[in-house]
Amino acid sequence: MTEYKIALVGFGGVNRGLAQLIAERNAEWKATLGFSLKIVGVTDLFLGSIVAREGLDARQLVALPGEQGAFAQLPGGTAEAFNETIIKHSGADMISEATFTNPVDGEPATTFCRWALESGIHVVTTNKGPIALHGAELKDVARRNGVAFEYEGSVMSGTPVIRLASQALAGADIQGFEGILNGTSNYVLTRMKDGLTFNDAVAQAQQLGYAEADPTADVEGYDVRLKVVILANELLNARLTVSDVACSGISSISPKDIAQATASGASWKLIGSAHREADGSVRANVEARLLPNEHPLASVSGALNAVSFNTGLLGAVTVCGPGAGRIETAFALLSDIIAIHNRYSK
Amino acid sequence: MTEYKIALVGFGGVNRGLAQLIAERNAEWKATLGFSLKIVGVTDLFLGSIVAREGLDARQLVALPGEQGAFAQLPGGTAEAFNETIIKHSGADMISEATFTNPVDGEPATTFCRWALESGIHVVTTNKGPIALHGAELKDVARRNGVAFEYEGSVMSGTPVIRLASQALAGADIQGFEGILNGTSNYVLTRMKDGLTFNDAVAQAQQLGYAEADPTADVEGYDVRLKVVILANELLNARLTVSDVACSGISSISPKDIAQATASGASWKLIGSAHREADGSVRANVEARLLPNEHPLASVSGALNAVSFNTGLLGAVTVCGPGAGRIETAFALLSDIIAIHNRYSK
Repeated sequence: MTEYKIALVGFGGVNRGLAQLIAERNAEWKATLGFSLKIVGVTDLFLGSIVAREGLDARQLVALPGEQGAFAQLPGGTAEAFNETIIKHSGADMISEATFTNPVDGEPATTFCRWALESGIHVVTTNKGPIALHGAELKDVARRNGVAFEYEGSVMSGTPVIRLASQALAGADIQGFEGILNGTSNYVLTRMKDGLTFNDAVAQAQQLGYAEADPTADVEGYDVRLKVVILANELLNARLTVSDVACSGISSISPKDIAQATASGASWKLIGSAHREADGSVRANVEARLLPNEHPLASVSGALNAVSFNTGLLGAVTVCGPGAGRIETAFALLSDIIAIHNRYSK
Repeated sequence: MTEYKIALVGFGGVNRGLAQLIAERNAEWKATLGFSLKIVGVTDLFLGSIVAREGLDARQLVALPGEQGAFAQLPGGTAEAFNETIIKHSGADMISEATFTNPVDGEPATTFCRWALESGIHVVTTNKGPIALHGAELKDVARRNGVAFEYEGSVMSGTPVIRLASQALAGADIQGFEGILNGTSNYVLTRMKDGLTFNDAVAQAQQLGYAEADPTADVEGYDVRLKVVILANELLNARLTVSDVACSGISSISPKDIAQATASGASWKLIGSAHREADGSVRANVEARLLPNEHPLASVSGALNAVSFNTGLLGAVTVCGPGAGRIETAFALLSDIIAIHNRYSK
């Protein structure tokens, strides 16, 4: 039986979710997955940090109040975030990186990932920034150091997309994909179909916690664009950067557009897509599209996400599931750890 | 680079599809998948058999006419189906079993699988009979002989279901599933929604090659029942037999039922499902259900198939894709071979 020592980098909802899963299911995992997890360190820019080679109590971590410097309340904890120490010197076999996404330069998450990989420590992350902006470099660092760099949760939270494509659809000849990759904008479009204006639908999404105070990244397609870059590079072996992907959002769609679409048996959806051209190059974009109701993505409503893979051997294969959520995204980290276990423990 | 020697058992559409993929893509697979396939034998009750340790020409096999005893036309071929010889003594590393599904006792396919497994030869199959009726025994034989027994194509052709659940959703705590698992009945229900009677819709499905001359197994749910047994035993660790699964079909659904459903924003679907009860037991059934249009399976139309997994950590995750087709089902065999390669070549 393997016990992995893990350090949690960033202790917001997602890594708290992972700590909660560890508290509730570690014993069960020994039997069903063949391993258990021991948290040996946690660091968070707001909460501070804590390290304990003998292992931290996951229940106690989950119960920590969300106050500045809160880790100082625990024995061995401090109000300061000793990121580099926790990542490199807590004795962890792997880090779970779940700090905020920085869409401009991917920092500080990219540095956190690089520190771990260069120290021979596996990285699992749900952070879009490092993958979309520095994915090729980080994968290379991982390869050179003989460790894994896994990021299933960077797209569609725990719903399998990257691993579905690379494992279960290996050999199916993926030629492109179309996806509903942002729950907030899909929720807004769904509510507009119910008769709300764009502004009222955004306000409702904010009330429900789907949308940020500034919803720009969601409704203008910038969040989707990062995910399109990740998927195109992963699934189609492209080398796209963010500036290669033309991007527009849903803010210009009027109630009249929505009503006309409904009357004609169609639905507006914010679609991120990429496909391989005849010359082998990959083209990708993000835009609102009018989908006939028979389209596999037309009926994906509310905050759900979905990706439809266009394959040479199977035609379209579509997977639909949650695109966000604390536990749902924490599951993505678990699924990355399972993949690492299956690859390295045999 | 690994070259697997494979014998094809049954040479109808599916194994012909696999031979076609080998003819077209073997060179590419060396680079992308790390292996190639060499066909060392083929046997078919109607066409006869052929064996060649140095390898058969996949293109020549694909072009073989569908006439009784046709293998006698090829050098080294015979009009007789030497099943046991081809399976045990052609020098194959694996067999691809794709004979007809016998829903009563799973024969002769079960015997073919057992012969191979007992001889230390991997089995990939698309045949529901051996898995639904003798799955536990055959898995046990495989384990004892240190070989693989893979059957992704027994449910939803090449659309990943079994491997999606066991690999990408490992740890997600699958508690049940609901599926549209028969394309013919789903096509019939879709056409009835367009205004056709049951009989006219069945006739159209027959014209398109979706339905057999006797459509009973499709429209009365017997085909779905075999798939429910396979999935329940695989995903929920159940030990169900066919007689444990209550089964009814769609033949009693009237145009009036369909019209009423449409008017109330719902759709009739033939659903195969299973779930774990509070006491740990698994209950499964097959029946026509009225699904509200928001249900993830309600919009799956035509001959498409879909399964919605109910999971503890992700809620519902749904995969939708082809449920039949020559090349689509042949891809399932390829995906099984890829899984074997990944497990045994490392």
